[in-house]
Amino acid sequence: MTKKRIFSGMQPSGNFHMGNYQVLSNWIKLQEEYDCIYSIVDWHALTSSYEDTGKLPERIENIALDWLSAGLDPEKSIVFVQSHVKEHAELHLLLSMMTPLSWLERVPTYKDKLQQLGEMGKEINTYGFLGYPELMTADIILYKADVVPVAEDQIPHLELTREIVRRFANLYKPIFPEPQAILSPLLPGIDGRKMSKSYGNEIPYAAEPEELQARVRLMITDPKRVKKTDAGDPEVCTVYTFHKIFSSQQEQSEIAGHCRNASIGCVECKKRLAEKMVTTLVDVHSRRKELAAKPEKIREILAYGAERARKVAAATMEEVRSVMNLG
Amino acid sequence: MTKKRIFSGMQPSGNFHMGNYQVLSNWIKLQEEYDCIYSIVDWHALTSSYEDTGKLPERIENIALDWLSAGLDPEKSIVFVQSHVKEHAELHLLLSMMTPLSWLERVPTYKDKLQQLGEMGKEINTYGFLGYPELMTADIILYKADVVPVAEDQIPHLELTREIVRRFANLYKPIFPEPQAILSPLLPGIDGRKMSKSYGNEIPYAAEPEELQARVRLMITDPKRVKKTDAGDPEVCTVYTFHKIFSSQQEQSEIAGHCRNASIGCVECKKRLAEKMVTTLVDVHSRRKELAAKPEKIREILAYGAERARKVAAATMEEVRSVMNLG
Ligand code: SF4
Ligand code: SF4
Repeated sequence: MTKKRIFSGMQPSGNFHMGNYQVLSNWIKLQEEYDCIYSIVDWHALTSSYEDTGKLPERIENIALDWLSAGLDPEKSIVFVQSHVKEHAELHLLLSMMTPLSWLERVPTYKDKLQQLGEMGKEINTYGFLGYPELMTADIILYKADVVPVAEDQIPHLELTREIVRRFANLYKPIFPEPQAILSPLLPGIDGRKMSKSYGNEIPYAAEPEELQARVRLMITDPKRVKKTDAGDPEVCTVYTFHKIFSSQQEQSEIAGHCRNASIGCVECKKRLAEKMVTTLVDVHSRRKELAAKPEKIREILAYGAERARKVAAATMEEVRSVMNLG
Repeated sequence: MTKKRIFSGMQPSGNFHMGNYQVLSNWIKLQEEYDCIYSIVDWHALTSSYEDTGKLPERIENIALDWLSAGLDPEKSIVFVQSHVKEHAELHLLLSMMTPLSWLERVPTYKDKLQQLGEMGKEINTYGFLGYPELMTADIILYKADVVPVAEDQIPHLELTREIVRRFANLYKPIFPEPQAILSPLLPGIDGRKMSKSYGNEIPYAAEPEELQARVRLMITDPKRVKKTDAGDPEVCTVYTFHKIFSSQQEQSEIAGHCRNASIGCVECKKRLAEKMVTTLVDVHSRRKELAAKPEKIREILAYGAERARKVAAATMEEVRSVMNLG
């Protein structure tokens, strides 16, 4: 049986944080089970930063470093930069012809994000910004992805993708699968709320061991577990959410069991987490440092990924042109 | 001194008429003075006919036949099919990121055409239809065209193109010239009104000599010239408008002179026009028939044109990517 295919992308925003790391560690796990295609979506980054592209090359290199040092395997997965594969632009244009304007206008995140970025002084009420989910659709179906790991706020985008896939099938031929979402839960901040710089609840991805330990000590736990002898519920505990990323499956169930029968204290539990985070991240950061010294190696890896992506994309576009009666 | 560059395009609508022929004969004249790039814009055709693309390949071949048989020279000019040069899609996507939505929404033809096609039962309120002038902009500036021959109703599109060129220059670098319009006046119908099937005033492009003669006989002339001894004004005469296309410069001034001093009658003037039209079009139609028997030759010509276009387009895109800091 052939593996199902996954497509996902991340913008080179220049601000890789623990939340991105969580998504990434999920991608890394998915590599084993799926045929994965991961893209640094630099064209998407233009939707909100077309006015200042000076840092883009550096940001692309940085996110590639983040991905590879964390364990994304460019042999197992196809890892590439979106703008290196022109077929994304061609499919985006073709889909644009058959996508009702209203479908894009009613995407719930559209108006919200427009307002939010407008308040930050960004003038992004552009044609391309409206077409964001159209480009995302092109990205996904260009590789005939079956599954797309997304954060909750992107569910409406994926719903739109499925609608466009159905419309394409009705107008031409059903050559694209309807991609299914798998939800990547968002990593909370240390206070249990959404991780955000403005809440001051972040854990910097590049934090030194001492800072990591300090931040973990401040994490909120199961609020009902007042005394060490109270049984806890790991599922409502921020510390445990982090264990899910940094500890092995076995360690996770061990901790969950101990927490539920009060045989581990929160202090000890946090200590274990901090250790895990330190070991993992120290490792990642040192790999990153090594890689950063070899920019030509990064370029090679991305060129290799683009070549592999292009093969898949070119085959899809041939099919698309054929069913649409285009040269 | 290098020649100025012209870009223009025509949709393969499957309905080549005398009005198109007029535009074309203008293009053919421009070949001598300018460095011309002419494109069969099949992607544009999708904006209004994405629902039925079955006839597209045939229509592309047909319009290529029309162009070449009328005298468009694929050695002098670059003649190609838009979708064969993917750079159009890439530049369209990049421009979309920096084009305010409102600029596209306020193009005067947008709402009009939307309504008009809506009344014909066409559901074209799509993202791509809104982006029509954006794609046209990409077409033009991809070749750094200095001059664009346009019909009057496309003047606002070209104004938008110039605005986008200025915005690009401000955001990145001024690598594109601001293209200037040269107006191609519309050929009227035989009653002097806009040529349109619904008015029944058309002259079919493929008309046989007898039909042509009959249609010319019905043409409206200078309404103030009642008797043959009245002096006429060729500039308000439909017959003279056609002479401008089908007769030589010298013949035109001869006729204009004779008309102004009443030394030629309208019957004779029409006879001369009909003769010219018959000779010219019989020639064109027979060349078309010959060419139609060699579809592989047409394909070769278009492939050659695409190759030449791609070279220019690729050089522009390298510059675009460099000033936008994209890989
Ligand atoms: S023991 Fe661990 S999982 Fe349980 S409440 Fe305390 S910190 Fe959370
Ligand atoms: S002589 Fe010719 S140009 Fe003058 S009014 Fe008659 S038809 Fe027109």
